[in-house]
Amino acid sequence: MPDPQKIEIVEVSARDGLQNEARIFSISEKISLINRAIDSGVRRLEVASFVNPKRVPQMANAEEVVAGLTVRDDVTYIGLIMNERGLDRALDTGVDEVGCVSVATDIFAQKNQGQTSSESVQIASSMIKRALNEGLKANVTISTAFGCPFEGEVSIEHVVEMAKQLADAGPHEIAIADTIGVANPWHVSELLDAVKNAIPNMPLRMHFHNTRNTGIANVYAAVNAGVSTIDSSIAGIGGCPFAPAATGNVPTEDVVFMLQRAGINTGLSLDLLISTAKWLSELMQKPLPGMVSRAGEFPK
Amino acid sequence: MPDPQKIEIVEVSARDGLQNEARIFSISEKISLINRAIDSGVRRLEVASFVNPKRVPQMANAEEVVAGLTVRDDVTYIGLIMNERGLDRALDTGVDEVGCVSVATDIFAQKNQGQTSSESVQIASSMIKRALNEGLKANVTISTAFGCPFEGEVSIEHVVEMAKQLADAGPHEIAIADTIGVANPWHVSELLDAVKNAIPNMPLRMHFHNTRNTGIANVYAAVNAGVSTIDSSIAGIGGCPFAPAATGNVPTEDVVFMLQRAGINTGLSLDLLISTAKWLSELMQKPLPGMVSRAGEFPK
Repeated sequence: MPDPQKIEIVEVSARDGLQNEARIFSISEKISLINRAIDSGVRRLEVASFVNPKRVPQMANAEEVVAGLTVRDDVTYIGLIMNERGLDRALDTGVDEVGCVSVATDIFAQKNQGQTSSESVQIASSMIKRALNEGLKANVTISTAFGCPFEGEVSIEHVVEMAKQLADAGPHEIAIADTIGVANPWHVSELLDAVKNAIPNMPLRMHFHNTRNTGIANVYAAVNAGVSTIDSSIAGIGGCPFAPAATGNVPTEDVVFMLQRAGINTGLSLDLLISTAKWLSELMQKPLPGMVSRAGEFPK
Repeated sequence: MPDPQKIEIVEVSARDGLQNEARIFSISEKISLINRAIDSGVRRLEVASFVNPKRVPQMANAEEVVAGLTVRDDVTYIGLIMNERGLDRALDTGVDEVGCVSVATDIFAQKNQGQTSSESVQIASSMIKRALNEGLKANVTISTAFGCPFEGEVSIEHVVEMAKQLADAGPHEIAIADTIGVANPWHVSELLDAVKNAIPNMPLRMHFHNTRNTGIANVYAAVNAGVSTIDSSIAGIGGCPFAPAATGNVPTEDVVFMLQRAGINTGLSLDLLISTAKWLSELMQKPLPGMVSRAGEFPK
């Protein structure tokens, strides 16, 4: 059985999940989703994105959502930020941690946050430093690290170079994201070897979409490469704005099923995750990508 | 990039795929599916199951299907058999190879083929010997090797013992099947290490269902463990009779996408596989589990 005995799941359904779904959740529905995840054992969650609600209506009312959350010493609430204005808003709320975003390719960076790739590294770096000065934890995600819908292939060397520059700003963690679901597990292993070689002491988090059915294999490869923190989304909500028929983030309950079957502890309750996956499916009035909630646990 | 440079895909949609779908395909539809797979580059396929059509109406007209196939030196047609009566029928047709089935657990073996687990090993062994005497190739699958819907956990030691006994009968290949989709990739690695240690010269084939979203990760683990033959089903048809809402075999086009992205050759055309996945979805009038056909290739 595998070496790592414990994997931390960062639940992203309330941010990356909802952000890519057509249905707009109310403030109380968002808070319910977050509380259900916490009740399932999740202790670190993306809860809001401090972006312009005119651009991303799904993320409106970020302040009200955060204000409605229960303050708990054992739970970390993460707010996503793209620029200094987002950081201002995050600092005015009660989030425990900010997540900055750098993008590996220029066209995606321009469309996502109005920056070049290089600017996204500089801006994230300065936001990390300011957040730390203000007493917040700060992580940073490298987006489109395995491929870009506009520019195609992304080299491992480029991602490693970005990771080194971002590490200098002092985040407590760097996340590497397969934003559009094109990674394969051999690519994951190779990239992680290169990043760990360049910044051996930096904790890494991996963010995978199951767009082309490789998401769970990529989680497996990342865990085998020694990564101990994985992003996932209950029921696999999230979709992909660049592939309308595609499925979303790797489903939390499916990741937990795989890990638990291999004896790896996540601290999460599969039963309660499945219950929330079914609640989401009813609320959204459609079948959702997660599979364990449909197929059932094993052994029964 | 990975060590194996070539993986053989055995296309099972016309057998394991159709067998678990409610819709009954006509003889000409079955032949079209098989010919489309061959046009995509597949060179080895399960094309029929010589079982009682009263028990499995989806597999009726096995003789007519096989009679309608184009005889090609470069294509191997496999017919599945459960007993001597099935072998009689297979011998009367033009299949190139028979696939025998042994089951790891008694209750599943009784329900599937009216044998105990131990009887299924003895019967498969004698069928393999007879098929070889008659000039046919013969493989054997160990079913429910990762878990049974009725008996739960299946030990690695038990599967290894079955594999050793079956190897003595002289099949050219042993397949190991996660019949109900409960394997995890660490289990796959551990089982394969044990089997390869016990019968190092026996070619192995792996058969995975994506019932709980671990199927593609299991393929990855198997390829990394040195297995060079993988079963899959275009569009992921197949379902699971023991989990009505569950998805089927690992989708051929999704497996091929992952392997090709990692530089592993399968000899298959992803474009043509996607085209057949869409054809199947239209014919069956429902969305099917394969994901690459919906999300699109990468890079474009």
